[in-house]
Amino acid sequence: MDPDQLRVLLEEVRTGAVDIDGAMLRLRHLPFEDLGFAKVDHHRALRQGMPEVVFAQGKTPDQVVAIASRLQDISQNVLITRVDADSAAAVTRQLPGADYFRLSGAIRLWRDRTVRGKGIVTVVCAGTSDIPVAEEALLTVEVMGNRVDSIYDIGVAGFHRLMHNRDRLLEARVIIVCAGMEGALPSAVGGLVSCPVIAVPTSVGYGASFHGLAALLGMLNSCSSNVTVVNIDNGFGAGFVASLINRP
Amino acid sequence: MDPDQLRVLLEEVRTGAVDIDGAMLRLRHLPFEDLGFAKVDHHRALRQGMPEVVFAQGKTPDQVVAIASRLQDISQNVLITRVDADSAAAVTRQLPGADYFRLSGAIRLWRDRTVRGKGIVTVVCAGTSDIPVAEEALLTVEVMGNRVDSIYDIGVAGFHRLMHNRDRLLEARVIIVCAGMEGALPSAVGGLVSCPVIAVPTSVGYGASFHGLAALLGMLNSCSSNVTVVNIDNGFGAGFVASLINRP
Amino acid sequence: MDPDQLRVLLEEVRTGAVDIDGAMLRLRHLPFEDLGFAKVDHHRALRQGMPEVVFAQGKTPDQVVAIASRLQDISQNVLITRVDADSAAAVTRQLPGADYFRLSGAIRLWRDRTVRGKGIVTVVCAGTSDIPVAEEALLTVEVMGNRVDSIYDIGVAGFHRLMHNRDRLLEARVIIVCAGMEGALPSAVGGLVSCPVIAVPTSVGYGASFHGLAALLGMLNSCSSNVTVVNIDNGFGAGFVASLINRP
Amino acid sequence: MDPDQLRVLLEEVRTGAVDIDGAMLRLRHLPFEDLGFAKVDHHRALRQGMPEVVFAQGKTPDQVVAIASRLQDISQNVLITRVDADSAAAVTRQLPGADYFRLSGAIRLWRDRTVRGKGIVTVVCAGTSDIPVAEEALLTVEVMGNRVDSIYDIGVAGFHRLMHNRDRLLEARVIIVCAGMEGALPSAVGGLVSCPVIAVPTSVGYGASFHGLAALLGMLNSCSSNVTVVNIDNGFGAGFVASLINRP
Amino acid sequence: MDPDQLRVLLEEVRTGAVDIDGAMLRLRHLPFEDLGFAKVDHHRALRQGMPEVVFAQGKTPDQVVAIASRLQDISQNVLITRVDADSAAAVTRQLPGADYFRLSGAIRLWRDRTVRGKGIVTVVCAGTSDIPVAEEALLTVEVMGNRVDSIYDIGVAGFHRLMHNRDRLLEARVIIVCAGMEGALPSAVGGLVSCPVIAVPTSVGYGASFHGLAALLGMLNSCSSNVTVVNIDNGFGAGFVASLINRP
Amino acid sequence: MDPDQLRVLLEEVRTGAVDIDGAMLRLRHLPFEDLGFAKVDHHRALRQGMPEVVFAQGKTPDQVVAIASRLQDISQNVLITRVDADSAAAVTRQLPGADYFRLSGAIRLWRDRTVRGKGIVTVVCAGTSDIPVAEEALLTVEVMGNRVDSIYDIGVAGFHRLMHNRDRLLEARVIIVCAGMEGALPSAVGGLVSCPVIAVPTSVGYGASFHGLAALLGMLNSCSSNVTVVNIDNGFGAGFVASLINRP
Amino acid sequence: MDPDQLRVLLEEVRTGAVDIDGAMLRLRHLPFEDLGFAKVDHHRALRQGMPEVVFAQGKTPDQVVAIASRLQDISQNVLITRVDADSAAAVTRQLPGADYFRLSGAIRLWRDRTVRGKGIVTVVCAGTSDIPVAEEALLTVEVMGNRVDSIYDIGVAGFHRLMHNRDRLLEARVIIVCAGMEGALPSAVGGLVSCPVIAVPTSVGYGASFHGLAALLGMLNSCSSNVTVVNIDNGFGAGFVASLINRP
Amino acid sequence: MDPDQLRVLLEEVRTGAVDIDGAMLRLRHLPFEDLGFAKVDHHRALRQGMPEVVFAQGKTPDQVVAIASRLQDISQNVLITRVDADSAAAVTRQLPGADYFRLSGAIRLWRDRTVRGKGIVTVVCAGTSDIPVAEEALLTVEVMGNRVDSIYDIGVAGFHRLMHNRDRLLEARVIIVCAGMEGALPSAVGGLVSCPVIAVPTSVGYGASFHGLAALLGMLNSCSSNVTVVNIDNGFGAGFVASLINRP
Repeated sequence: MDPDQLRVLLEEVRTGAVDIDGAMLRLRHLPFEDLGFAKVDHHRALRQGMPEVVFAQGKTPDQVVAIASRLQDISQNVLITRVDADSAAAVTRQLPGADYFRLSGAIRLWRDRTVRGKGIVTVVCAGTSDIPVAEEALLTVEVMGNRVDSIYDIGVAGFHRLMHNRDRLLEARVIIVCAGMEGALPSAVGGLVSCPVIAVPTSVGYGASFHGLAALLGMLNSCSSNVTVVNIDNGFGAGFVASLINRP
Repeated sequence: MDPDQLRVLLEEVRTGAVDIDGAMLRLRHLPFEDLGFAKVDHHRALRQGMPEVVFAQGKTPDQVVAIASRLQDISQNVLITRVDADSAAAVTRQLPGADYFRLSGAIRLWRDRTVRGKGIVTVVCAGTSDIPVAEEALLTVEVMGNRVDSIYDIGVAGFHRLMHNRDRLLEARVIIVCAGMEGALPSAVGGLVSCPVIAVPTSVGYGASFHGLAALLGMLNSCSSNVTVVNIDNGFGAGFVASLINRP
Repeated sequence: MDPDQLRVLLEEVRTGAVDIDGAMLRLRHLPFEDLGFAKVDHHRALRQGMPEVVFAQGKTPDQVVAIASRLQDISQNVLITRVDADSAAAVTRQLPGADYFRLSGAIRLWRDRTVRGKGIVTVVCAGTSDIPVAEEALLTVEVMGNRVDSIYDIGVAGFHRLMHNRDRLLEARVIIVCAGMEGALPSAVGGLVSCPVIAVPTSVGYGASFHGLAALLGMLNSCSSNVTVVNIDNGFGAGFVASLINRP
Repeated sequence: MDPDQLRVLLEEVRTGAVDIDGAMLRLRHLPFEDLGFAKVDHHRALRQGMPEVVFAQGKTPDQVVAIASRLQDISQNVLITRVDADSAAAVTRQLPGADYFRLSGAIRLWRDRTVRGKGIVTVVCAGTSDIPVAEEALLTVEVMGNRVDSIYDIGVAGFHRLMHNRDRLLEARVIIVCAGMEGALPSAVGGLVSCPVIAVPTSVGYGASFHGLAALLGMLNSCSSNVTVVNIDNGFGAGFVASLINRP
Repeated sequence: MDPDQLRVLLEEVRTGAVDIDGAMLRLRHLPFEDLGFAKVDHHRALRQGMPEVVFAQGKTPDQVVAIASRLQDISQNVLITRVDADSAAAVTRQLPGADYFRLSGAIRLWRDRTVRGKGIVTVVCAGTSDIPVAEEALLTVEVMGNRVDSIYDIGVAGFHRLMHNRDRLLEARVIIVCAGMEGALPSAVGGLVSCPVIAVPTSVGYGASFHGLAALLGMLNSCSSNVTVVNIDNGFGAGFVASLINRP
Repeated sequence: MDPDQLRVLLEEVRTGAVDIDGAMLRLRHLPFEDLGFAKVDHHRALRQGMPEVVFAQGKTPDQVVAIASRLQDISQNVLITRVDADSAAAVTRQLPGADYFRLSGAIRLWRDRTVRGKGIVTVVCAGTSDIPVAEEALLTVEVMGNRVDSIYDIGVAGFHRLMHNRDRLLEARVIIVCAGMEGALPSAVGGLVSCPVIAVPTSVGYGASFHGLAALLGMLNSCSSNVTVVNIDNGFGAGFVASLINRP
Repeated sequence: MDPDQLRVLLEEVRTGAVDIDGAMLRLRHLPFEDLGFAKVDHHRALRQGMPEVVFAQGKTPDQVVAIASRLQDISQNVLITRVDADSAAAVTRQLPGADYFRLSGAIRLWRDRTVRGKGIVTVVCAGTSDIPVAEEALLTVEVMGNRVDSIYDIGVAGFHRLMHNRDRLLEARVIIVCAGMEGALPSAVGGLVSCPVIAVPTSVGYGASFHGLAALLGMLNSCSSNVTVVNIDNGFGAGFVASLINRP
Repeated sequence: MDPDQLRVLLEEVRTGAVDIDGAMLRLRHLPFEDLGFAKVDHHRALRQGMPEVVFAQGKTPDQVVAIASRLQDISQNVLITRVDADSAAAVTRQLPGADYFRLSGAIRLWRDRTVRGKGIVTVVCAGTSDIPVAEEALLTVEVMGNRVDSIYDIGVAGFHRLMHNRDRLLEARVIIVCAGMEGALPSAVGGLVSCPVIAVPTSVGYGASFHGLAALLGMLNSCSSNVTVVNIDNGFGAGFVASLINRP
């Protein structure tokens, strides 16, 4: 959709030849722009009602800076995940107002803080080592306009800890549970609540954890029917889906 | 919680010593009854607002009949999954009004057909061979009180088919996508819509599909951020979570 | 050690040239007898204070009958595991007083019922489908002279069930926990008690359970430090070690 | 359980309203305290009669120091595993009297040296490269109040070495066997003794050892029935369970 | 084939005793020369009509320099793949006119730029992080005498991007598609066109991508029948086969 | 595209408002028809110039018959793969003129025998047990209009056999090589020729062949650069791509 | 090598133009004959001094009979492995004098019983269930002209059994050790002797034996340096190599 | 065996009460000496007629120096494998006359150069990157008293190279073949010769080579019956067994 097409469409909207819904529908699938190495999709925010997100791993600092600079003109909120410490300096310099979160390696520009979700999204993690993944989820959930709660270091081997937090868990509309090693926490949480639980296996562990495989398989075989799973260490994905579920 | 305890609790409710919310909360976590080989949890329906569900695989026909008979007295709706043809006859004889669905091997007693979900749950499958899994998801979604839509045989190799159904996909509140082989359909669907997509890898395929492993890994690595995943062939789990998401 | 050597040794015991401890030590490592296809170790009972055990899988009915017939002359108690229904008839015909347990496929000749263990060995299983493995463990524990308790169908998704049985669990000297699918129950049980927990992954499940691999990995990564693991479906091994631990 | 609750409970003990056993039982499951990033469970020592243990891998030096400082006030003995050389300096500075063991990366504060176990726990390892894992097991076994023996570098390819140490092995109440590569040593040891053997696969090896997988699978398939298995390189877990078994 | 044999053969050609075709056939299978550590096959260019190619990974800089120096005397075009930055300086110094491509680590000496292919070879990649692999493919395709087109950053989650480029895709004689993570792009492209598609899984991703395994399995199970697959990250192999297909 | 749309389009063609190329392009992506359980894509033949193909595995006989009956009205040539013996009778009864090939389980209706390919497609297999896969490839190649050659039972352990057939291999425009066990034959063939080689790993073998995995990995790592790979046992896929490559 | 070439070669031998050694060398690499589905290599016996061997798995009874009939005219000794019971009747009917060995499924025609090996080949197996694989090895070793010894059911958990047979093991020139489950026996045997040990992992076991994978990995990681490994259940291969080693 | 026992035994030899063979036999299994962290087996040279060998990987420089210093007093020849460059300096300083081989990381003290093997051991490798493994094999074969030949860089994709070296291959008594990637070279060599072939998979490759797994599986499934396999990169093991086979 080149500029000419866009102008025609907008004039049709103005004249009433195309109504708002129709224009929304046509805009939803079309525009993007070529930066040479990456096609930035300017309307993705419109299409999915979400902030712009960049996955920085495997991109050079220059590429991340170039994409981020462009996105901040288009979107109020920008989230960049998996930024290493070296690149973070360069990137934050280009994004005034953006914060760098060292544990998760995320950079967040959070200018529009409207709450859009109807309930609470609660982020739970099993151990101290799972916090980086939980943080990535939490940052995502917040920047997408949700009220959040977080409960950290609540392992399945200590039921009393879970029980102690039962009431907070019961208040959530969606729960994200991050756990490595055996990955049993989502099942335990899932058995206590009746809302959807998004399980995030983490690569925390050693030996037969096989970099998160044990946790991943455990979660896929969960005996709690309200559990779905995302990729190992994918805190962002869990936060993204939780936000979609929490929409009114 | 034995009967005496239950009577005390209910009297407390009657006298106002315990209010309704308090009683609900205490009931939510306690009662079950011992059949010897399986503890049937009578209040699970109350706890999660869901029909009774039995996973028949690995159970003898006698065990399934015994559990099912008991459950139909407690719950209006009963769903039994993974029943082989031999056992199905015995089971349906005990559950008047129950239907057997040959492809998915599910038995469903559907007496309370109230619609509780606010939107539409759409079930999509990639090929004819994926239909059994899709059927299990569909039966679950229906019996849990949702309006449903289904689109079958819509592979990723033919984009025009996906595009042809884009409008129906855009109307869904949640979409379940069942696919075997390479499992790419959830990503393609996820890229078209902005609602949550639950991906169900199926064991359809041969050779390097490794009984659904290829599809499972593909879905976990989906480039569409609105996708979460359940176990291979787990149509029930996908239907269950979709219903939770679709609650008002 | 041929018969002559044995006679010499026993005479040395009678004359006091060798004391009882010394004779025990020498007998512990030596004797067996050749049946052609299998060397039956007559002194294994003496060596380890245990009944004779035969692993029938992969042996022909004739082989099992031949070994079993011989063993019943040597040992009061005999346990044969993994016997299929066809072979069971032939075998039980040769072992008067032996019982066949259909679920686990075990045959047990239990003539010496002395209790030797000092505490209680408790066998727990997660679901109805795990009962065959739990039964194999239970039969082993009993025939090795232990008081036993068993708690079946107590999944991790329902904490209240675990809590309901907490007191029984706290009374055990050793606990065996059999679970398939995600295999999270041993961690949950392990977190409630301070005795050793032996985890038995079962092949119960489908899809990404990969025939018990998911449960096995989960148990190996247990966050409860009192958990050790045996092979998938190895109820016998768990019962055997539990009996050794329970010795005074 | 906040301080007020604890005071009430203790007064009930004083007045006799609650007896000692009852108070023990209630204390066993409840208290912990919030450090923000990790809930330190002060009563775990009481609950399991064990020293405080911290798994340092994946935690920042600051986190480890904070947890360790707090724990030394609560428990006589503290064991911190998997500490890298850089963090060790900071941590030992905060724990006067603590020793750092370079091979295994463990830090141990061992103030209460009461012997509680009734027998000897013997730690065996196959090769020089397995010593770090054996050391972690040994430190755990000692700090938990056991008499210990250790036999290093005793591979399965040299039977005479095993035989040479048979008498020492026969004196143990529990044996821990650490081995990498093919992991056959636990079976060989298990065949010589009648006590429980805890097998620890190590990641020692190359090529088709696949970081300890070969040893792990070998041990799980051990033909010696008295063998159970813990995670790859999990010397601590083996020492912990051995201590539980060795309790009177 | 030693020099004497070669002289004899060429004289036979001169006298007509052997015609050109016959000589070609005999030369096709024989000659190479010994550098001590690597037998450089001087006639490979003749045998397959291709430039000389060196796979530098696992070779020392000295070895690469020695092979490359020799090859530039024999062949107009030389391609060296997987050269790290350190070695690149040494190698380019020896090959005047050669260019180093940092992203893919390739060095190319491109003196004969004749176009030999009859159609266009199009290189497509899914994300910015896949560009290094795509570049290796592109350099190969060019140096082997093909007209090329390239379309980067065209993920399966945005169908409109694919559709936007449909016309360019339809003009290709062969298409190379590089994609990591779920590896679904080759199927999507394959469904739009009727020419052969060569799929290159890349190691781009994290967690359950398992270093490209997820993408590899997905591509092998592609539902588009016009897809074949090469090794993970093997851009060179894809470019090589694409060139063979594109020959008149 | 419903009938009305089709009529409009064809009238536009008639009036010249749309020229033939334009109509071809629009038709290429749109039409299919709903049989309820499978959307038969009538224009696939047009879109890819290929016969109709049905993958029968996982479909019921009734489903296969229904699809096949419909397709024979639309396409001169029909190929149905993976038909078991039981279903074959029913299917061939509905397709007069169709042949059933027992080894590969393929059914072929071959009415249009025009040769469209410019060169020869040669199918090679390593052992007698690989013939079913080779046959599936051969039937595909023939029905898609190619001249074919086949060389069976030509293992890599006997170089002289390969050499004996070198001349026939050199005449091919594309070669398909089917091999199980170690899967080395494609490399050996690839080293002899300069045309593209499509490698088909077969599930032939036992033990560490892991149902074709060993052959698959071997082929993906081939040291011959002219080799690409398809799924295990996917003779059809190899034949399909070979036909595309062989087009003028 | 067609008949004409063969005649020329033999005449050259007769006239002395080619001596016997030269003719042997040329014959070693060339002749075979086409049966249509399998190229029977008549000179393999000559080339390797071995009997004709047929691997029957995956071949139809007709194919096996056809190959076997032909081979018995060419070779004194024929060995057919992996014949199922149904096919065995047909095959033995065609090979007068051939014996069928039910456990291993081998058929052997053993007419030339010359002893060619200089020492003893000893076949050891760990358990009764490993006997079929050991039998295949034993039949191979015998038919290839070796003196043999066999020691069955000698597990690694009972060292005294191994020690009891030490002298017989020390007499061997080569030892074949077949073992399933953990596969530790080859290491134990290898540590006792100084001759080469060929390890054959068997698929005996369950659960984490993964059909022989555990035994295979264990053997590949053997700490005895005199051990090499063949495929799972490959008794024939072990016997074949043992015979080559035992040649004078 | 303590010194007293040794003196008694030697006196028995002197008096003739025990003959030399008997004394050899008794010595073969007993003596070793304790260095604290590693039991150096002084009689291993005697037991297996081999030089002392140390596997340095996973040992500290101090440990390697200590073991090596001791061994050089006992054995004429010492081989230390897998020594990194840092440790090599320290070690060679302690072993005058020892050479360090950088590619393979081996240190060799070769004082007794007697040839003991009866034939030639030939070491073949597929590519330049496989040379380190081949070197380890070569050094082992030499130090164990064999005449050697080596042929490097002889891939399966160029048959003519293999053929060119056929005569040298035919002269070997044993052949060691090192190959990474697809690992097909041992099969090709095995098909040309009738002596035993020891295959060494190397970790050379990328992507789906999975660090040597592809080569390992390929070699285990070799269609050449004269091939056995050792661990990935285990050049030493291959050289060791080859030497045993080559003994008269």
